[in-house]
Amino acid sequence: MPTYRITIEYNGTAFCGWQRQPDLLTIQGQLEIAAETIFRQPIQIQGAGRTDSGVHALGQVASFEAPHPIDPKHLRRGLTALAGPDISVIEAALAPDRFNARFDAQGKHYRYQLIARRSPSPLHALYSHHVPAPLDLERMATAAAMLIGEHDFAGFRAADCGRENTVRELSQVTVSAQGTLIAIDVKGTAFLKNMVRIIAGTLIDVSRGRLEPETISRGFESKDRRFAGITAPAKGLTLVEVFYPEGWLRPKPGSAKKKITD
Amino acid sequence: MPTYRITIEYNGTAFCGWQRQPDLLTIQGQLEIAAETIFRQPIQIQGAGRTDSGVHALGQVASFEAPHPIDPKHLRRGLTALAGPDISVIEAALAPDRFNARFDAQGKHYRYQLIARRSPSPLHALYSHHVPAPLDLERMATAAAMLIGEHDFAGFRAADCGRENTVRELSQVTVSAQGTLIAIDVKGTAFLKNMVRIIAGTLIDVSRGRLEPETISRGFESKDRRFAGITAPAKGLTLVEVFYPEGWLRPKPGSAKKKITD
Repeated sequence: MPTYRITIEYNGTAFCGWQRQPDLLTIQGQLEIAAETIFRQPIQIQGAGRTDSGVHALGQVASFEAPHPIDPKHLRRGLTALAGPDISVIEAALAPDRFNARFDAQGKHYRYQLIARRSPSPLHALYSHHVPAPLDLERMATAAAMLIGEHDFAGFRAADCGRENTVRELSQVTVSAQGTLIAIDVKGTAFLKNMVRIIAGTLIDVSRGRLEPETISRGFESKDRRFAGITAPAKGLTLVEVFYPEGWLRPKPGSAKKKITD
Repeated sequence: MPTYRITIEYNGTAFCGWQRQPDLLTIQGQLEIAAETIFRQPIQIQGAGRTDSGVHALGQVASFEAPHPIDPKHLRRGLTALAGPDISVIEAALAPDRFNARFDAQGKHYRYQLIARRSPSPLHALYSHHVPAPLDLERMATAAAMLIGEHDFAGFRAADCGRENTVRELSQVTVSAQGTLIAIDVKGTAFLKNMVRIIAGTLIDVSRGRLEPETISRGFESKDRRFAGITAPAKGLTLVEVFYPEGWLRPKPGSAKKKITD
Protein backbone atom coordinates (compact mmCIF):
# COMPACT_ATOMS: atom_id res chain seq x y z
CA MET A 1 0.00 0.00 0.00
CA PRO A 2 1.65 3.25 -1.11
CA THR A 3 2.00 6.14 1.35
CA TYR A 4 1.28 9.68 0.17
CA ARG A 5 2.34 12.98 1.66
CA ILE A 6 0.26 16.09 1.05
CA THR A 7 0.98 19.73 1.87
CA ILE A 8 -2.11 21.77 2.64
CA GLU A 9 -3.03 25.45 2.88
CA TYR A 10 -6.26 26.29 4.65
CA ASN A 11 -8.36 29.13 5.91
CA GLY A 12 -9.23 27.79 9.38
CA THR A 13 -11.98 30.33 10.12
CA ALA A 14 -14.97 28.06 9.59
CA PHE A 15 -13.42 24.85 10.96
CA CYS A 16 -13.44 23.30 14.42
CA GLY A 17 -9.70 22.74 14.01
CA TRP A 18 -7.74 20.03 12.23
CA GLN A 19 -8.84 16.91 14.07
CA ARG A 20 -11.83 14.95 12.83
CA GLN A 21 -14.76 15.01 15.25
CA PRO A 22 -18.24 13.57 14.81
CA ASP A 23 -20.74 16.07 13.38
CA LEU A 24 -18.22 18.93 13.31
CA LEU A 25 -16.57 20.57 10.31
CA THR A 26 -12.82 19.88 10.54
CA ILE A 27 -9.96 19.99 8.06
CA GLN A 28 -8.95 16.37 8.65
CA GLY A 29 -12.58 15.39 8.29
CA GLN A 30 -12.98 17.23 4.96
CA LEU A 31 -9.76 15.74 3.59
CA GLU A 32 -10.69 12.21 4.68
CA ILE A 33 -14.12 12.53 3.07
CA ALA A 34 -12.43 13.79 -0.09
CA ALA A 35 -9.90 10.91 -0.05
CA GLU A 36 -12.67 8.38 0.60
CA THR A 37 -14.53 9.73 -2.42
CA ILE A 38 -11.39 9.22 -4.53
CA PHE A 39 -10.42 5.77 -3.20
CA ARG A 40 -13.92 4.48 -2.37
CA GLN A 41 -12.87 3.14 1.02
CA PRO A 42 -12.11 4.48 4.52
CA ILE A 43 -8.88 6.52 4.63
CA GLN A 44 -7.12 7.76 7.77
CA ILE A 45 -5.09 10.93 7.28
CA GLN A 46 -2.38 11.79 9.80
CA GLY A 47 -1.62 15.51 10.17
CA ALA A 48 1.72 16.87 11.38
CA GLY A 49 0.04 19.39 13.67
CA ARG A 50 -3.45 19.32 15.12
CA THR A 51 -4.22 23.00 14.67
CA ASP A 52 -6.95 24.46 16.90
CA SER A 53 -10.30 25.82 15.86
CA GLY A 54 -9.77 28.97 13.78
CA VAL A 55 -6.04 28.45 13.20
CA HIS A 56 -4.81 28.62 9.57
CA ALA A 57 -2.08 26.83 7.66
CA LEU A 58 0.13 27.74 4.73
CA GLY A 59 2.03 24.45 4.88
CA GLN A 60 0.36 21.79 7.02
CA VAL A 61 1.66 18.33 6.10
CA ALA A 62 -0.30 15.09 6.29
CA SER A 63 0.21 11.48 5.26
CA PHE A 64 -1.93 8.46 4.57
CA GLU A 65 -1.79 4.97 3.13
CA ALA A 66 -3.75 4.57 -0.06
CA PRO A 67 -5.31 1.26 -1.10
CA HIS A 68 -3.78 1.60 -4.58
CA PRO A 69 -1.32 3.87 -6.38
CA ILE A 70 -2.51 7.14 -7.87
CA ASP A 71 -0.79 9.85 -9.92
CA PRO A 72 0.12 12.49 -7.26
CA LYS A 73 -1.04 15.22 -9.65
CA HIS A 74 -4.51 13.67 -9.81
CA LEU A 75 -4.47 13.21 -6.03
CA ARG A 76 -3.63 16.90 -5.50
CA ARG A 77 -6.30 18.07 -7.93
CA GLY A 78 -8.95 15.65 -6.66
CA LEU A 79 -8.48 16.44 -2.98
CA THR A 80 -8.42 20.20 -3.67
CA ALA A 81 -11.60 20.01 -5.71
CA LEU A 82 -13.45 17.81 -3.20
CA ALA A 83 -12.33 19.36 0.11
CA GLY A 84 -14.06 22.70 -0.47
CA PRO A 85 -12.85 26.25 -1.20
CA ASP A 86 -11.18 26.83 2.19
CA ILE A 87 -8.75 23.92 1.76
CA SER A 88 -6.11 23.66 -0.96
CA VAL A 89 -3.68 20.78 -1.43
CA ILE A 90 -0.64 22.57 -2.78
CA GLU A 91 1.60 19.52 -3.14
CA ALA A 92 1.12 15.75 -3.23
CA ALA A 93 3.88 13.18 -3.52
CA LEU A 94 4.58 9.51 -3.04
CA ALA A 95 6.31 9.23 0.36
CA PRO A 96 8.78 6.63 1.61
CA ASP A 97 7.07 3.55 3.11
CA ARG A 98 5.92 4.06 6.68
CA PHE A 99 6.34 7.85 6.39
CA ASN A 100 4.21 9.45 9.09
CA ALA A 101 3.67 13.19 8.84
CA ARG A 102 3.23 13.52 12.59
CA PHE A 103 5.90 11.26 14.05
CA ASP A 104 8.56 12.00 11.44
CA ALA A 105 8.24 15.78 11.81
CA GLN A 106 11.39 17.35 13.24
CA GLY A 107 9.99 20.78 13.85
CA LYS A 108 7.42 23.40 12.90
CA HIS A 109 7.28 27.04 11.95
CA TYR A 110 4.32 29.02 13.23
CA ARG A 111 3.59 32.68 12.50
CA TYR A 112 1.38 34.88 14.64
CA GLN A 113 0.24 38.07 12.88
CA LEU A 114 -1.02 41.30 14.39
CA ILE A 115 -2.46 44.50 12.94
CA ALA A 116 -1.12 47.18 15.26
CA ARG A 117 -3.02 50.40 14.62
CA ARG A 118 -6.17 52.08 15.79
CA SER A 119 -8.52 50.98 12.98
CA PRO A 120 -9.16 47.39 11.91
CA SER A 121 -7.88 46.03 8.58
CA PRO A 122 -10.55 44.53 6.31
CA LEU A 123 -7.89 43.15 3.93
CA HIS A 124 -5.75 41.39 6.57
CA ALA A 125 -8.50 40.57 9.08
CA LEU A 126 -8.73 36.93 8.01
CA TYR A 127 -5.33 35.97 9.45
CA SER A 128 -4.40 38.72 11.90
CA HIS A 129 -5.40 39.81 15.37
CA HIS A 130 -6.19 43.51 15.74
CA VAL A 131 -4.30 45.29 18.51
CA PRO A 132 -5.64 48.87 18.47
CA ALA A 133 -2.36 50.55 19.44
CA PRO A 134 1.17 50.84 18.10
CA LEU A 135 3.45 48.10 19.46
CA ASP A 136 6.92 48.53 20.98
CA LEU A 137 8.83 46.18 18.68
CA GLU A 138 12.10 46.58 20.58
CA ARG A 139 10.58 45.48 23.87
CA MET A 140 8.89 42.58 22.06
CA ALA A 141 12.20 41.55 20.45
CA THR A 142 13.93 41.61 23.85
CA ALA A 143 11.28 39.35 25.33
CA ALA A 144 11.25 37.13 22.21
CA ALA A 145 14.99 36.52 22.51
CA MET A 146 14.50 35.23 26.06
CA LEU A 147 12.20 32.48 24.76
CA ILE A 148 14.81 30.99 22.43
CA GLY A 149 16.52 27.77 23.57
CA GLU A 150 15.39 24.92 25.82
CA HIS A 151 13.00 25.93 28.60
CA ASP A 152 10.24 24.51 30.71
CA PHE A 153 7.18 26.03 29.03
CA ALA A 154 4.74 24.73 31.69
CA GLY A 155 3.59 28.33 32.22
CA PHE A 156 2.96 28.75 28.50
CA ARG A 157 0.23 26.21 27.83
CA ALA A 158 -3.51 25.81 28.01
CA ALA A 159 -5.00 24.75 31.35
CA ASP A 160 -6.22 21.47 29.80
CA CYS A 161 -2.88 20.54 28.20
CA GLY A 162 -2.14 17.08 29.56
CA ARG A 163 1.56 16.71 28.61
CA GLU A 164 3.84 15.50 31.40
CA ASN A 165 7.08 16.71 29.85
CA THR A 166 6.76 20.46 29.34
CA VAL A 167 10.34 21.16 28.29
CA ARG A 168 10.46 22.43 24.72
CA GLU A 169 13.17 23.93 22.56
CA LEU A 170 12.63 26.97 20.35
CA SER A 171 15.23 27.77 17.69
CA GLN A 172 13.67 31.04 16.54
CA VAL A 173 11.35 33.69 18.00
CA THR A 174 11.49 36.89 15.97
CA VAL A 175 9.32 39.96 15.57
CA SER A 176 9.17 41.80 12.25
CA ALA A 177 6.98 44.53 10.76
CA GLN A 178 5.65 45.31 7.29
CA GLY A 179 3.95 48.61 7.94
CA THR A 180 1.39 47.96 10.67
CA LEU A 181 1.29 44.20 10.00
CA ILE A 182 3.49 42.58 12.66
CA ALA A 183 4.69 38.98 12.38
CA ILE A 184 5.93 36.85 15.27
CA ASP A 185 7.77 33.86 13.78
CA VAL A 186 8.34 30.90 16.06
CA LYS A 187 10.26 27.76 15.15
CA GLY A 188 10.71 24.77 17.43
CA THR A 189 10.85 21.01 17.59
CA ALA A 190 7.49 20.62 19.32
CA PHE A 191 4.84 22.77 21.00
CA LEU A 192 2.46 22.54 23.93
CA LYS A 193 -1.23 23.32 23.57
CA ASN A 194 -1.78 27.05 22.84
CA MET A 195 1.94 27.69 23.35
CA VAL A 196 2.42 30.00 20.34
CA ARG A 197 -0.77 31.92 21.10
CA ILE A 198 0.38 32.43 24.71
CA ILE A 199 3.82 33.53 23.45
CA ALA A 200 2.07 36.05 21.16
CA GLY A 201 -0.14 37.24 24.04
CA THR A 202 2.90 37.56 26.29
CA LEU A 203 4.77 39.66 23.71
CA ILE A 204 1.71 41.91 23.32
CA ASP A 205 1.53 42.34 27.11
CA VAL A 206 5.26 43.09 27.23
CA SER A 207 4.81 45.71 24.51
CA ARG A 208 1.99 47.36 26.44
CA GLY A 209 4.07 47.41 29.63
CA ARG A 210 1.75 45.01 31.44
CA LEU A 211 4.63 42.54 31.70
CA GLU A 212 8.39 43.09 31.87
CA PRO A 213 10.60 41.00 29.56
CA GLU A 214 12.25 39.64 32.72
CA THR A 215 8.92 38.20 33.84
CA ILE A 216 9.45 35.50 31.23
CA SER A 217 12.36 33.92 33.10
CA ARG A 218 10.29 34.02 36.28
CA GLY A 219 7.54 32.26 34.33
CA PHE A 220 10.00 29.51 33.36
CA GLU A 221 11.15 29.10 36.97
CA SER A 222 7.74 29.17 38.62
CA LYS A 223 5.92 27.19 35.84
CA ASP A 224 3.02 29.48 36.73
CA ARG A 225 0.61 30.40 33.92
CA ARG A 226 0.10 33.81 35.56
CA PHE A 227 3.62 34.91 34.65
CA ALA A 228 2.79 34.65 30.96
CA GLY A 229 0.40 36.86 28.99
CA ILE A 230 -3.07 36.29 27.62
CA THR A 231 -3.78 33.62 25.00
CA ALA A 232 -3.98 35.61 21.77
CA PRO A 233 -6.95 34.73 19.48
CA ALA A 234 -6.68 31.73 17.15
CA LYS A 235 -7.30 33.73 13.94
CA GLY A 236 -3.82 35.34 14.13
CA LEU A 237 -2.03 31.98 14.07
CA THR A 238 -0.80 30.19 10.93
CA LEU A 239 1.16 26.94 10.67
CA VAL A 240 3.70 28.01 8.03
CA GLU A 241 5.87 24.94 7.54
CA VAL A 242 6.66 21.50 8.94
CA PHE A 243 10.26 20.29 8.88
CA TYR A 244 11.42 16.75 8.05
CA PRO A 245 14.86 15.15 7.85
CA GLU A 246 16.71 16.10 4.67
CA GLY A 247 15.95 13.80 1.76
CA TRP A 248 12.92 12.36 3.55
CA LEU A 249 10.47 14.86 2.17
CA ARG A 250 10.96 14.77 -1.56
CA PRO A 251 11.51 11.23 -2.77
CA LYS A 252 11.77 11.19 -6.53
CA PRO A 253 10.82 7.69 -7.62
CA GLY A 254 12.48 6.90 -10.91
CA SER A 255 15.09 9.64 -10.60
CA ALA A 256 17.86 7.03 -10.29
CA LYS A 257 16.60 5.35 -13.46
CA LYS A 258 16.47 8.71 -15.16
CA LYS A 259 20.11 9.35 -14.37
CA ILE A 260 21.07 6.15 -16.14
CA THR A 261 19.20 7.06 -19.29
CA ASP A 262 20.43 10.65 -19.25
CA MET B 1 -17.14 74.80 6.75
CA PRO B 2 -14.13 72.65 7.61
CA THR B 3 -12.77 70.18 5.07
CA TYR B 4 -11.75 66.71 6.22
CA ARG B 5 -9.49 64.18 4.58
CA ILE B 6 -9.93 60.50 5.30
CA THR B 7 -7.74 57.53 4.33
CA ILE B 8 -9.66 54.32 3.81
CA GLU B 9 -8.87 50.59 3.58
CA TYR B 10 -11.56 48.39 2.11
CA ASN B 11 -12.29 44.87 0.98
CA GLY B 12 -13.98 45.62 -2.34
CA THR B 13 -15.37 42.10 -2.89
CA ALA B 14 -19.00 42.83 -2.02
CA PHE B 15 -19.15 46.35 -3.46
CA CYS B 16 -20.18 47.67 -6.87
CA GLY B 17 -17.07 49.83 -6.80
CA TRP B 18 -16.35 53.17 -5.15
CA GLN B 19 -18.87 55.45 -6.81
CA ARG B 20 -22.30 55.91 -5.27
CA GLN B 21 -25.11 54.52 -7.41
CA PRO B 22 -28.80 54.27 -6.61
CA ASP B 23 -29.78 50.94 -5.01
CA LEU B 24 -26.25 49.48 -5.23
CA LEU B 25 -23.80 48.81 -2.44
CA THR B 26 -20.79 51.09 -3.00
CA ILE B 27 -17.96 52.31 -0.80
CA GLN B 28 -18.71 55.99 -1.39
CA GLY B 29 -22.36 55.28 -0.67
CA GLN B 30 -21.60 53.52 2.62
CA LEU B 31 -19.25 56.31 3.71
CA GLU B 32 -21.74 59.04 2.79
CA ILE B 33 -24.51 57.29 4.72
CA ALA B 34 -22.13 56.96 7.69
CA ALA B 35 -21.16 60.65 7.48
CA GLU B 36 -24.81 61.68 7.13
CA THR B 37 -25.59 59.74 10.30
CA ILE B 38 -22.82 61.62 12.10
CA PHE B 39 -23.60 65.13 10.76
CA ARG B 40 -27.36 64.71 10.28
CA GLN B 41 -27.33 66.30 6.86
CA PRO B 42 -26.40 65.35 3.28
CA ILE B 43 -22.63 64.95 2.80
CA GLN B 44 -20.80 64.55 -0.50
CA ILE B 45 -17.55 62.62 -0.28
CA GLN B 46 -14.98 62.98 -3.05
CA GLY B 47 -12.71 59.98 -3.59
CA ALA B 48 -9.23 60.21 -5.15
CA GLY B 49 -9.84 57.15 -7.32
CA ARG B 50 -13.11 55.64 -8.44
CA THR B 51 -12.12 52.02 -8.00
CA ASP B 52 -14.12 49.46 -9.97
CA SER B 53 -16.41 46.76 -8.66
CA GLY B 54 -14.35 44.22 -6.69
CA VAL B 55 -11.20 46.35 -6.47
CA HIS B 56 -9.69 46.82 -2.99
CA ALA B 57 -7.88 49.68 -1.30
CA LEU B 58 -5.23 49.91 1.38
CA GLY B 59 -5.00 53.70 1.13
CA GLN B 60 -7.86 55.29 -0.78
CA VAL B 61 -8.15 58.99 0.08
CA ALA B 62 -11.35 61.02 0.16
CA SER B 63 -12.39 64.50 1.22
CA PHE B 64 -15.56 66.29 2.18
CA GLU B 65 -16.84 69.52 3.67
CA ALA B 66 -18.48 69.08 7.04
CA PRO B 67 -21.24 71.39 8.30
CA HIS B 68 -19.40 71.83 11.60
CA PRO B 69 -16.03 70.92 13.12
CA ILE B 70 -15.49 67.49 14.65
CA ASP B 71 -12.58 65.86 16.44
CA PRO B 72 -10.84 63.85 13.67
CA LYS B 73 -10.44 60.91 16.09
CA HIS B 74 -14.21 60.79 16.60
CA LEU B 75 -14.73 61.13 12.86
CA ARG B 76 -12.41 58.17 12.16
CA ARG B 77 -14.06 56.00 14.81
CA GLY B 78 -17.58 56.97 13.86
CA LEU B 79 -17.17 56.39 10.13
CA THR B 80 -15.39 53.06 10.71
CA ALA B 81 -18.12 51.87 13.06
CA LEU B 82 -20.97 52.98 10.78
CA ALA B 83 -19.60 52.01 7.34
CA GLY B 84 -19.60 48.26 8.02
CA PRO B 85 -16.88 45.63 8.54
CA ASP B 86 -15.44 45.78 5.00
CA ILE B 87 -14.54 49.47 5.27
CA SER B 88 -12.05 50.93 7.74
CA VAL B 89 -11.12 54.59 8.03
CA ILE B 90 -7.48 54.37 9.05
CA GLU B 91 -6.82 58.09 9.27
CA ALA B 92 -8.89 61.25 9.49
CA ALA B 93 -7.54 64.80 9.57
CA LEU B 94 -8.59 68.39 9.11
CA ALA B 95 -7.48 69.32 5.58
CA PRO B 96 -6.54 72.71 4.17
CA ASP B 97 -9.55 74.70 2.91
CA ARG B 98 -10.67 73.65 -0.56
CA PHE B 99 -8.61 70.45 -0.40
CA ASN B 100 -10.07 68.02 -2.93
CA ALA B 101 -8.88 64.41 -2.71
CA ARG B 102 -9.48 63.86 -6.42
CA PHE B 103 -8.23 67.04 -8.03
CA ASP B 104 -5.28 67.61 -5.72
CA ALA B 105 -3.94 64.06 -6.16
CA GLN B 106 -0.56 64.02 -7.92
CA GLY B 107 -0.37 60.29 -8.46
CA LYS B 108 -1.41 56.85 -7.34
CA HIS B 109 0.16 53.55 -6.46
CA TYR B 110 -1.73 50.43 -7.50
CA ARG B 111 -0.70 46.84 -6.77
CA TYR B 112 -1.89 43.84 -8.75
CA GLN B 113 -1.33 40.52 -6.96
CA LEU B 114 -1.18 37.02 -8.41
CA ILE B 115 -0.91 33.55 -6.92
CA ALA B 116 1.26 31.69 -9.41
CA ARG B 117 1.07 27.98 -8.66
CA ARG B 118 -1.13 25.04 -9.55
CA SER B 119 -3.44 25.06 -6.51
CA PRO B 120 -5.50 28.03 -5.30
CA SER B 121 -4.64 29.88 -2.09
CA PRO B 122 -7.48 30.09 0.46
CA LEU B 123 -5.49 32.57 2.60
CA HIS B 124 -4.60 35.02 -0.19
CA ALA B 125 -7.66 34.49 -2.41
CA LEU B 126 -9.37 37.68 -1.23
CA TYR B 127 -6.90 40.00 -2.97
CA SER B 128 -5.10 37.91 -5.54
CA HIS B 129 -5.83 36.42 -8.94
CA HIS B 130 -4.94 32.74 -9.32
CA VAL B 131 -2.72 31.91 -12.30
CA PRO B 132 -2.33 28.10 -12.20
CA ALA B 133 1.25 28.04 -13.54
CA PRO B 134 4.64 29.38 -12.52
CA LEU B 135 5.35 32.80 -14.05
CA ASP B 136 8.48 33.92 -15.89
CA LEU B 137 9.35 36.91 -13.74
CA GLU B 138 12.27 37.96 -15.95
CA ARG B 139 10.11 38.21 -19.05
CA MET B 140 7.50 40.09 -17.01
CA ALA B 141 10.14 42.51 -15.71
CA THR B 142 11.42 43.16 -19.26
CA ALA B 143 7.90 43.99 -20.42
CA ALA B 144 7.19 46.02 -17.28
CA ALA B 145 10.22 48.23 -17.91
CA MET B 146 8.88 49.10 -21.37
CA LEU B 147 5.74 50.57 -19.80
CA ILE B 148 7.64 53.10 -17.69
CA GLY B 149 7.63 56.70 -18.92
CA GLU B 150 5.16 58.73 -20.98
CA HIS B 151 3.21 56.72 -23.54
CA ASP B 152 -0.09 56.72 -25.34
CA PHE B 153 -2.00 54.05 -23.42
CA ALA B 154 -4.98 54.07 -25.82
CA GLY B 155 -4.48 50.31 -26.31
CA PHE B 156 -4.51 49.75 -22.55
CA ARG B 157 -7.99 50.83 -21.57
CA ALA B 158 -11.53 49.54 -21.38
CA ALA B 159 -13.63 49.78 -24.55
CA ASP B 160 -16.02 52.19 -22.82
CA CYS B 161 -13.31 54.53 -21.52
CA GLY B 162 -14.31 57.93 -22.84
CA ARG B 163 -11.09 59.90 -22.24
CA GLU B 164 -9.85 61.95 -25.20
CA ASN B 165 -6.28 62.32 -24.01
CA THR B 166 -4.87 58.84 -23.55
CA VAL B 167 -1.25 59.81 -22.87
CA ARG B 168 -0.25 58.81 -19.36
CA GLU B 169 3.05 58.71 -17.49
CA LEU B 170 4.11 55.79 -15.32
CA SER B 171 7.04 56.29 -12.93
CA GLN B 172 7.20 52.68 -11.72
CA VAL B 173 6.15 49.26 -13.01
CA THR B 174 7.90 46.49 -11.07
CA VAL B 175 7.34 42.78 -10.53
CA SER B 176 8.34 41.14 -7.25
CA ALA B 177 7.73 37.75 -5.63
CA GLN B 178 7.22 36.52 -2.09
CA GLY B 179 7.10 32.79 -2.65
CA THR B 180 4.26 32.21 -5.09
CA LEU B 181 2.58 35.54 -4.33
CA ILE B 182 3.58 37.91 -7.15
CA ALA B 183 3.08 41.68 -6.90
CA ILE B 184 2.98 44.07 -9.85
CA ASP B 185 3.44 47.59 -8.46
CA VAL B 186 2.42 50.46 -10.73
CA LYS B 187 2.83 54.15 -9.94
CA GLY B 188 1.70 56.97 -12.18
CA THR B 189 0.16 60.41 -12.28
CA ALA B 190 -3.17 59.23 -13.68
CA PHE B 191 -4.74 56.10 -15.14
CA LEU B 192 -7.26 55.18 -17.83
CA LYS B 193 -10.17 52.86 -17.13
CA ASN B 194 -8.95 49.28 -16.43
CA MET B 195 -5.38 50.35 -17.32
CA VAL B 196 -3.66 48.57 -14.42
CA ARG B 197 -5.72 45.42 -14.92
CA ILE B 198 -4.80 45.40 -18.63
CA ILE B 199 -1.14 45.96 -17.72
CA ALA B 200 -1.37 42.96 -15.34
CA GLY B 201 -3.08 40.85 -18.01
CA THR B 202 -0.44 41.87 -20.56
CA LEU B 203 2.39 40.86 -18.21
CA ILE B 204 0.70 37.50 -17.59
CA ASP B 205 0.36 36.96 -21.35
CA VAL B 206 4.01 37.93 -21.84
CA SER B 207 5.02 35.44 -19.14
CA ARG B 208 3.06 32.68 -20.85
CA GLY B 209 4.63 33.47 -24.23
CA ARG B 210 1.34 34.57 -25.76
CA LEU B 211 2.79 38.06 -26.22
CA GLU B 212 6.35 39.22 -26.75
CA PRO B 213 7.62 42.12 -24.62
CA GLU B 214 8.19 44.01 -27.88
CA THR B 215 4.47 43.80 -28.64
CA ILE B 216 4.00 46.51 -26.04
CA SER B 217 5.71 49.18 -28.14
CA ARG B 218 3.61 48.12 -31.10
CA GLY B 219 0.57 48.49 -28.84
CA PHE B 220 1.63 52.08 -28.07
CA GLU B 221 2.14 52.88 -31.76
CA SER B 222 -1.03 51.28 -33.07
CA LYS B 223 -3.22 52.31 -30.09
CA ASP B 224 -4.91 48.97 -30.75
CA ARG B 225 -6.36 47.12 -27.75
CA ARG B 226 -5.48 43.81 -29.42
CA PHE B 227 -1.77 44.41 -28.88
CA ALA B 228 -2.26 44.34 -25.11
CA GLY B 229 -3.24 41.33 -23.00
CA ILE B 230 -6.47 40.35 -21.30
CA THR B 231 -8.03 42.47 -18.56
CA ALA B 232 -7.02 40.67 -15.35
CA PRO B 233 -9.84 40.19 -12.78
CA ALA B 234 -10.71 43.05 -10.41
CA LYS B 235 -10.07 41.05 -7.20
CA GLY B 236 -6.28 41.14 -7.75
CA LEU B 237 -6.15 44.94 -7.79
CA THR B 238 -5.55 47.16 -4.75
CA LEU B 239 -5.21 50.95 -4.60
CA VAL B 240 -2.24 51.17 -2.24
CA GLU B 241 -1.60 54.90 -1.90
CA VAL B 242 -2.54 58.30 -3.28
CA PHE B 243 0.14 60.97 -3.54
CA TYR B 244 -0.32 64.66 -2.73
CA PRO B 245 2.06 67.62 -2.82
CA GLU B 246 4.41 67.67 0.17
CA GLY B 247 2.96 69.48 3.18
CA TRP B 248 -0.51 69.43 1.69
CA LEU B 249 -1.46 66.14 3.25
CA ARG B 250 -0.74 66.53 6.92
CA PRO B 251 -1.67 69.98 8.12
CA LYS B 252 -1.10 70.30 11.84
CA PRO B 253 -3.44 73.00 13.02
CA GLY B 254 -2.11 74.57 16.17
CA SER B 255 1.43 73.32 15.65
CA ALA B 256 2.71 76.91 15.29
CA LYS B 257 1.02 77.89 18.54
CA LYS B 258 2.51 74.81 20.21
CA LYS B 259 5.99 75.86 19.21
CA ILE B 260 5.50 79.19 20.95
CA THR B 261 4.38 77.63 24.18
CA ASP B 262 7.07 74.92 24.14
